[in-house]
Amino acid sequence: MVMNKAGRDIPKEYADQFGIYEGELAHISDYQEASRTIKPVKPRDEKLVGSIREAIEKTGLTDGMTISFHHHFREGDFVMNMVLEEIAKMGIKNISIAPSSIANVHEPLIDHIKNGVVTNITSSGLRDKVGAAISEGIMENPVVIRSHGGRARAIAAGDVHIDVAFLGAPSSDEYGNANGTKGKATCGSLGYAMIDAKYADQVVIITDTLVPYPNTPISIPQTDVDYVVVVDAIGDPKGIAKGATRFTKNPKELIIAEYASKVITNSPYYKEGFSFQTGTGGAALAVTRFMREQMIKDNIKARFALGGITNAMVELLQEGLVEKIIDVQDFDHPSAVSLGEHADHYEIDANMYASPFSKGAVINQLDTAILSALEVDTDFNVNVMTGSDGVIRGASGGHSDTSMACKMSLVISPLVRGRIPTFVEHVNTVVTPGSSVDIVVTEIGIAINPLREDLVEHFKVIDIPQFTIKELQEKAYSIVGTPDPIQYGDKVVALIEYRDGSLIDVVRNV
Amino acid sequence: MVMNKAGRDIPKEYADQFGIYEGELAHISDYQEASRTIKPVKPRDEKLVGSIREAIEKTGLTDGMTISFHHHFREGDFVMNMVLEEIAKMGIKNISIAPSSIANVHEPLIDHIKNGVVTNITSSGLRDKVGAAISEGIMENPVVIRSHGGRARAIAAGDVHIDVAFLGAPSSDEYGNANGTKGKATCGSLGYAMIDAKYADQVVIITDTLVPYPNTPISIPQTDVDYVVVVDAIGDPKGIAKGATRFTKNPKELIIAEYASKVITNSPYYKEGFSFQTGTGGAALAVTRFMREQMIKDNIKARFALGGITNAMVELLQEGLVEKIIDVQDFDHPSAVSLGEHADHYEIDANMYASPFSKGAVINQLDTAILSALEVDTDFNVNVMTGSDGVIRGASGGHSDTSMACKMSLVISPLVRGRIPTFVEHVNTVVTPGSSVDIVVTEIGIAINPLREDLVEHFKVIDIPQFTIKELQEKAYSIVGTPDPIQYGDKVVALIEYRDGSLIDVVRNV
Repeated sequence: MVMNKAGRDIPKEYADQFGIYEGELAHISDYQEASRTIKPVKPRDEKLVGSIREAIEKTGLTDGMTISFHHHFREGDFVMNMVLEEIAKMGIKNISIAPSSIANVHEPLIDHIKNGVVTNITSSGLRDKVGAAISEGIMENPVVIRSHGGRARAIAAGDVHIDVAFLGAPSSDEYGNANGTKGKATCGSLGYAMIDAKYADQVVIITDTLVPYPNTPISIPQTDVDYVVVVDAIGDPKGIAKGATRFTKNPKELIIAEYASKVITNSPYYKEGFSFQTGTGGAALAVTRFMREQMIKDNIKARFALGGITNAMVELLQEGLVEKIIDVQDFDHPSAVSLGEHADHYEIDANMYASPFSKGAVINQLDTAILSALEVDTDFNVNVMTGSDGVIRGASGGHSDTSMACKMSLVISPLVRGRIPTFVEHVNTVVTPGSSVDIVVTEIGIAINPLREDLVEHFKVIDIPQFTIKELQEKAYSIVGTPDPIQYGDKVVALIEYRDGSLIDVVRNV
Repeated sequence: MVMNKAGRDIPKEYADQFGIYEGELAHISDYQEASRTIKPVKPRDEKLVGSIREAIEKTGLTDGMTISFHHHFREGDFVMNMVLEEIAKMGIKNISIAPSSIANVHEPLIDHIKNGVVTNITSSGLRDKVGAAISEGIMENPVVIRSHGGRARAIAAGDVHIDVAFLGAPSSDEYGNANGTKGKATCGSLGYAMIDAKYADQVVIITDTLVPYPNTPISIPQTDVDYVVVVDAIGDPKGIAKGATRFTKNPKELIIAEYASKVITNSPYYKEGFSFQTGTGGAALAVTRFMREQMIKDNIKARFALGGITNAMVELLQEGLVEKIIDVQDFDHPSAVSLGEHADHYEIDANMYASPFSKGAVINQLDTAILSALEVDTDFNVNVMTGSDGVIRGASGGHSDTSMACKMSLVISPLVRGRIPTFVEHVNTVVTPGSSVDIVVTEIGIAINPLREDLVEHFKVIDIPQFTIKELQEKAYSIVGTPDPIQYGDKVVALIEYRDGSLIDVVRNV
């Protein structure tokens, strides 16, 4: 065991392989960018093939290779299941999969793991049954959890080399020019997929909407694409927007949202031309609503909003309260439509969004971000990966990226959820180190990270109750009692990479 | 000496180093894409530096390195002269320059060559005094001439590795997001520069119009940029559009244009959704005008127009006669404006435009292209590089790329220019092999390449006089006499790469 800077014990074999977390910027240095093998496409060559099977055959996919997918279709994705089913039928084994994330809808993956088709996984998240199965220990090799920026870093640095990327595209032409704003299952930005397209040796575009050449706008260009397959349906539009757009009516969440909005609009960063990211989820959407009111009142406009985009943000753009939206992912249909129609709604890839190894990500220019949490501990460490039972059910997402890079990060969370404390002595799993978290917002008030002396000083006068993070934990425990420790097994089922590629934590089986 | 497939003798040392031309697709094979060294940019790092000198210092540029520029400002470019002057002042020597092309305005380069500051050059073209000086033999090492697609290929394949790209940008923000459609010296597409930005180890954006972050649309993203410098002026807008937009009133050129338009609109490719590239120059613009009339008459629209774009093409887009413009370079101000305003006017990079090593360039999807010539010989070989005196004064451009890849290439040229025959027994310099040229159009009629039996058959009935290419040459000689052979020296002053990187010809001193 080797203890890292987040105070977590990392088994030596993994510490040796990945390195351990030693601070937010400890492992940022010059590197040679990874590159792909290119098969040039000659005049008159055609890329359109008849089926997913034919595409797999043409790529020469064999045992032991790495394939990737994107998660822009979220719970509506058909692509990963279709491709893995075909791979399984073809008898190909020992495949590593590197999707940008994994959803509930990917439950068939469990059988592919058990049958030896899939033997390695890297992903931002694992939900429900897949997460539970991984936590039970069905895989020999641990899953590698990467943040969105960390995944882009891993691909650019060559830690992940994608042999074949299978990328669902709401529309494509026969030569592979693809976007997410036209078609039957529009998902908007293809920001995560764009990285795979640039670095994978071979790229297969899978679409249900073939359009005449040249398809524009071009999110994935023909110069990144080897084959194009047309299928009946790549995704379910309802699943794409699932659970993302509802405004909260929960009184606790509304108070949290109001406090968060108040913190931002009273911060040193709130001025003409500021920038923010609010993300998705009920409370986050409500923050946007409260901020809107204040911005109108103060006649202040934001220069840009970033991130995972929802309709709430699009409305600010339409109202002129936000000048530009910089978009790596859309969470609902109106956002996808806006990306296709509004020149100031701009698509970027995951590297530009959040990679710590890029020549400067957009999050580096961000004033403030609102992030969620499953657990926060008294060192401000945040867990967005495992439940209170220790089972994997979350996603790293852009959490550690954005909180580290922006000028003021807010983690919003109720004090307790049901009978479970959100504020704890030690989080089950560290995804984001406490040093990246500036202010925690709950329904009873806020706690400012004492490392941020400037913010402590600035907010002395704010009209919101303030606590230490220890007090928040004690209050949570006083409501629901001290939680029992989780009985983990000995097997490491997941490695949690910090965004720089080092290990910030591991997850053991339960 | 080794004779290549174009019948040209290549000195053995260069043949060994580059390989020799062996046919249009002989050297197209899988390869490992080149990659760059990246210095990650951390949160709070700034890219804005005070001067070109400071930028050069920060990049650590030293003797022997390779730097690049783009030629989107054409005769209005200030950037290359400014940067080379500073490099010279700093005492740095033995620099290789890899601009996408070199214009008359770059005459100060001659002194930098004589003083040992610049010792290697690769470029698409060399004009006037610089071309003449090179032809005189002022450089020890031959200039390497590459087509636009060939340059993108050379960079992607690592034949050219750019240490620092100095890229003029009409507008940029402090983090390096740049485009060519806003600012004081708008040039429109930054298609050639985009390649340098992606592959160079370090990129310096030089702008005279700094805009608030984030600058959109993004032609060159912040993730490709290390430093940003603001100067008083990066270019002269008048020089950008110089000589490009005038319509011809020359009766010979008008007949040629009419014939060319007739060939296209009577070809098998002329139907709803066809595509074309006409390029610049008086006759080419006139072709667009004649085609427009015929398209309106026949109620036929083009799916896309490609290339170097002029206002004549933008008008077709506005009229709905062309659905989309795919734009790697703009030749006048209205085109640059259109790119910024019209969603169906779409910017692409040089790799996507024309690289034979890409996963499929747009020229591969092109029906027909109109190209110019300084000389055409009886094997249909085309020279766009050296004058009748053997002096370098032209540019390879997209000539060999487009003519090879499109379905029907037209080379348009008057039979003679002044007292100089355009049609000759052997061109001085082969840039495009005759096998890529399908139809030659002159003011007296056309010659169809006998290799294109399908076109010979198809055009049997067309109402244009037809000749063999030999007859055109004989007619030219009958008007102005047989030209005297050029007295070349022994020194090789330029190597002419075919688009695949092999040598199709060399130019000797005169």
